[in-house]
Amino acid sequence: MSDRIFNLGAGPGVLPEPVLKQAQQDLWNVAGSGMGVMELSHRGKVFDRIIKEAEQACRELASIPDNYRVLFVQGGASLQFSMVPMNLLPKGGTADYLVTGVWSEKAVKEAKLYGTVHEAVSGADRSFTAIPPGTAIRYSAAPAYVHLTTNNTIYGTQWKAEPAPPAGVPLIADTSSDMYSRPIDVSKYGLIYAGAQKNLGPSGVVLVIIRDDLVEAGAKDLPTMLQYRTHAKNASLYNTPPTFGIYMMGLVFNWIRSEGGLAGMAERNAEKAAVLYDFLDQSDFFRGSAEPGSRSLMNVCFRAPTEELEARFIAEAVRRGFEGLKGHRSTGGMRASIYNAFPKAGCDALVKFMKEFEQANRAAAVS
Amino acid sequence: MSDRIFNLGAGPGVLPEPVLKQAQQDLWNVAGSGMGVMELSHRGKVFDRIIKEAEQACRELASIPDNYRVLFVQGGASLQFSMVPMNLLPKGGTADYLVTGVWSEKAVKEAKLYGTVHEAVSGADRSFTAIPPGTAIRYSAAPAYVHLTTNNTIYGTQWKAEPAPPAGVPLIADTSSDMYSRPIDVSKYGLIYAGAQKNLGPSGVVLVIIRDDLVEAGAKDLPTMLQYRTHAKNASLYNTPPTFGIYMMGLVFNWIRSEGGLAGMAERNAEKAAVLYDFLDQSDFFRGSAEPGSRSLMNVCFRAPTEELEARFIAEAVRRGFEGLKGHRSTGGMRASIYNAFPKAGCDALVKFMKEFEQANRAAAVS
Repeated sequence: MSDRIFNLGAGPGVLPEPVLKQAQQDLWNVAGSGMGVMELSHRGKVFDRIIKEAEQACRELASIPDNYRVLFVQGGASLQFSMVPMNLLPKGGTADYLVTGVWSEKAVKEAKLYGTVHEAVSGADRSFTAIPPGTAIRYSAAPAYVHLTTNNTIYGTQWKAEPAPPAGVPLIADTSSDMYSRPIDVSKYGLIYAGAQKNLGPSGVVLVIIRDDLVEAGAKDLPTMLQYRTHAKNASLYNTPPTFGIYMMGLVFNWIRSEGGLAGMAERNAEKAAVLYDFLDQSDFFRGSAEPGSRSLMNVCFRAPTEELEARFIAEAVRRGFEGLKGHRSTGGMRASIYNAFPKAGCDALVKFMKEFEQANRAAAVS
Repeated sequence: MSDRIFNLGAGPGVLPEPVLKQAQQDLWNVAGSGMGVMELSHRGKVFDRIIKEAEQACRELASIPDNYRVLFVQGGASLQFSMVPMNLLPKGGTADYLVTGVWSEKAVKEAKLYGTVHEAVSGADRSFTAIPPGTAIRYSAAPAYVHLTTNNTIYGTQWKAEPAPPAGVPLIADTSSDMYSRPIDVSKYGLIYAGAQKNLGPSGVVLVIIRDDLVEAGAKDLPTMLQYRTHAKNASLYNTPPTFGIYMMGLVFNWIRSEGGLAGMAERNAEKAAVLYDFLDQSDFFRGSAEPGSRSLMNVCFRAPTEELEARFIAEAVRRGFEGLKGHRSTGGMRASIYNAFPKAGCDALVKFMKEFEQANRAAAVS
């Protein structure tokens, strides 16, 4: 048996074990260079190959068209909340946001510093437990772009497919918590960004995929580091990039490829999520939090009959080797984050434990 | 013998070997948590201890006063070039910059987006081969702050002590390439920032030490991520921080402590630099590039008689196990970066090789 527990945390999350094994070696001496991977000059030959191979693997996985740049930047999705409007919301312009949770709301808040924000739809009236239907979306007359959050970690909801923006309007997506967990048609988007720390690597690096015309259209009176063109023109090497994070993303991309690519991930993730949702649907003790049609394959949120039982469940889970099950403080309850690298065996083991807990605590729930 | 070569690169640079060994273990399972260090929730107990211990070690090394915040942020020193004026240069205000190289010039360029920049002194007329004397500095009437670059990697120059700013004016320092290579009196500064990738850890994390009154004085109409107060109020946890980079910095701080703290580093670095400078001073083949009074203890820049001999020297050095000796493309020549973690044995070995090269190529130089 491994000395590792089942890590169901919402992120930074579990990484593929073969990736960790490789990284352990390369920390000391990578590619026979006599230097550890963190110690490489970002302008040297060894790192040049690492970043180019990471980009290449990233492109191949989603068949990213040639007119898109793949960038590795810093600051988390939270800085993208600002970089998007800074670069792409012209003075006096309006941007449309599809609001499906706290992270969408944070993106809205930052965009308001730069122009008018129109909330084209919001799930707030249902406490974000469902993704609003496409028919509920009301776009403004001429939005500069439409922004959505593809997966909402806190509520366990996920867009099943991207909504259609008005003709000619770029769709911009924060895919931080479900990037490369399933196939994605990049050509439908103007810009995609994802913090790495759920499905792609460690925290501290953000993947940005941006169409060439949006790179060009970006505002020019911005700090150099906050212009997409800076990173596009310099292939993410304007200044020293987060070299280790990029290296790790490259390893994770290779691992995804070895596991059947994005189709393989989708299959694997659907199977894992089904283990949990199928159990929740037949339980009269536990219940899923999100509307069935909006359920996330990444974050499975659920409740027990009382908050007391929830606290007991979470504490007992830790003793049984399940970490990170406590739900977000804003919603309470439980959350099982089952990102790409989380094994199906962990879902099976969790359900087994949930059954035992249900059995042992049914009396407490009824009383 | 180790399978590692002597890494004289300017950064990301060599890291202490005991730190790498520890990181190799912790990548798989840190502190008996059953999770790798990159896989920890930034809001969980294990990481909470890691970041608090890193801050504590950082504080102890330089006896950082209680009225300073220690922050771990993203974006490199290059983003600090903008965050400093965004936050601290009021509309219509003037900031004074001491210009000692390309990195100072980049800081100036970004500051000009936010206000007036007064170059209080510049080493440009001597191609930045010397730090101008304090007596040459001409401050403006009422600068918002004075900014300097403590060590200039490209030219191999370093301020021996910080200049005195006008009374009551905060001194702000980019210490990216000599932070914690020697004692630093934090109380003389308003704000200190340093990209980690020379002396403190991997790239992708910046150490910021900022006085409380400057946190408070910062502009409020900025993107949330670009306000120092955001990171100060949230103890660097407003959004997911670069957790692995912070962990690494903690290990490096502990290593510095175990090697005698900042006084120990200063002694060690002076000794290493003396090995190289003493050799250069007696050689009639190689010569140092920087003015003797301005010499950096971190980056030793030197030339050979001809560019052809320099190219030969660099190529032969690689074959002998010395990486990263090629000087910056803007200056040419050679540069030996001997940051904290670079061993004295490497300086001794390099001089031995230089002597041999000199002997073997003296004829070529004279002819």
